[in-house]
Amino acid sequence: MSLRRFLVPPGALSQDLVELPPAEAAHARQVLRLKTGDEVWLLDGQGLKARAVISRLDKAGATCQVLETRRPARPLPRLVLCPGLLKGPAMELLAVKLSELCVDEVRPYVGPRTVPKLGEATARLERWQRLAAQALKQCGAASPPLFQAPADLPAVLSAAPSAALKIMLYEDERQTTLAQALAAHPGAGEVWGLVGPEGGLAPGEVAAARAAGFMACGLGPVVLRAETASLALAAVVRLGR
Amino acid sequence: MSLRRFLVPPGALSQDLVELPPAEAAHARQVLRLKTGDEVWLLDGQGLKARAVISRLDKAGATCQVLETRRPARPLPRLVLCPGLLKGPAMELLAVKLSELCVDEVRPYVGPRTVPKLGEATARLERWQRLAAQALKQCGAASPPLFQAPADLPAVLSAAPSAALKIMLYEDERQTTLAQALAAHPGAGEVWGLVGPEGGLAPGEVAAARAAGFMACGLGPVVLRAETASLALAAVVRLGR
Repeated sequence: MSLRRFLVPPGALSQDLVELPPAEAAHARQVLRLKTGDEVWLLDGQGLKARAVISRLDKAGATCQVLETRRPARPLPRLVLCPGLLKGPAMELLAVKLSELCVDEVRPYVGPRTVPKLGEATARLERWQRLAAQALKQCGAASPPLFQAPADLPAVLSAAPSAALKIMLYEDERQTTLAQALAAHPGAGEVWGLVGPEGGLAPGEVAAARAAGFMACGLGPVVLRAETASLALAAVVRLGR
Repeated sequence: MSLRRFLVPPGALSQDLVELPPAEAAHARQVLRLKTGDEVWLLDGQGLKARAVISRLDKAGATCQVLETRRPARPLPRLVLCPGLLKGPAMELLAVKLSELCVDEVRPYVGPRTVPKLGEATARLERWQRLAAQALKQCGAASPPLFQAPADLPAVLSAAPSAALKIMLYEDERQTTLAQALAAHPGAGEVWGLVGPEGGLAPGEVAAARAAGFMACGLGPVVLRAETASLALAAVVRLGR
């Protein structure tokens, strides 16, 4: 069993002795039944991780002594996902799973076919970010995706740098597959992936994305729900080559 | 918007006039607000799909007239996933998502690190199969994965045919990646994928799988939860090449 992981506040790992947040301390003692002397990983959710040993663990809280800190490199390519904004449970599933799959940034967009409204979604941004950080404790990456506030599609499209490989998953595309698009650009240092909401990309959205340099990619015989398409895209970029 | 899809019982598509099951009829009328004359897809969950037109829709039920039936080919390679048995919500997520990703067969196994017991899981087999069939209505594939009753690992390993490409995801494998293993066998007609439970494969399980011809594949810097690893494997096989 690998070492247990705990989230600590940003900046906490600049010190040798780190107090665990109360909920983390209670989890360590009551659920995981850890003891003084046990080694753990501490993650600050901003890219820094530390191997540490529990020096005190009681009802009042937990203190860890840092043994070494590291800032692991993020995997390449840098991966930015732009999903059409989905309803609550689907976005929360994405927050967790895209964190595991080492997505670097998530930029949800709102369009004619998205169901949730912009205002509601902005209020949930903090929740997605928290779920993504909690997922680090499962997967051991050192930082979660950065969730940008939902925006309209033109704003998202124009944020993509010109050098990035830009892909949109589009069910009506019959020529180019995702695998072909990735294979044709093996050295891409940054990949942006646009994925429609339930109901798919509207024709005007496809045209706008093409004009912004996004290449339409089909998924062959497979028709995926919107959140599954985002997960599959991230999995293929991270693990398919 | 593509045509709405409805599940009908096995065998129903052998007739020209098909009665929708009561829950499907109610959904068509009250939620989707379909009308007489609307076209729909009917799926029998066993590989047959039919384009049909609603000929009657009222409080008593719905009848559809079949226009044409098809038996779409399953995508290649045939894909069999063998996940360590997971707790309820994770297995249910797998049932839905592996159906979307056109997995052909799921063979959960029980080992020293799996949490649910064999008896509990067998009782849930019917539920997984039902969730997988419901997912067809979202994704349009014609048949869901066949869920085998959970078994012990030796029984699952020995079921893999000798000609299949056999892969196990193993976090301690540093040499071969999943992408490399798949690229080295581009013509594989059948792929079996073994994925450990939460906590990973036990050393004895890794040895047994190797002895049965399963090739260990690492996931690079990414550490995935068990259910995410199964989804990622299916996504890479279906979409990564």
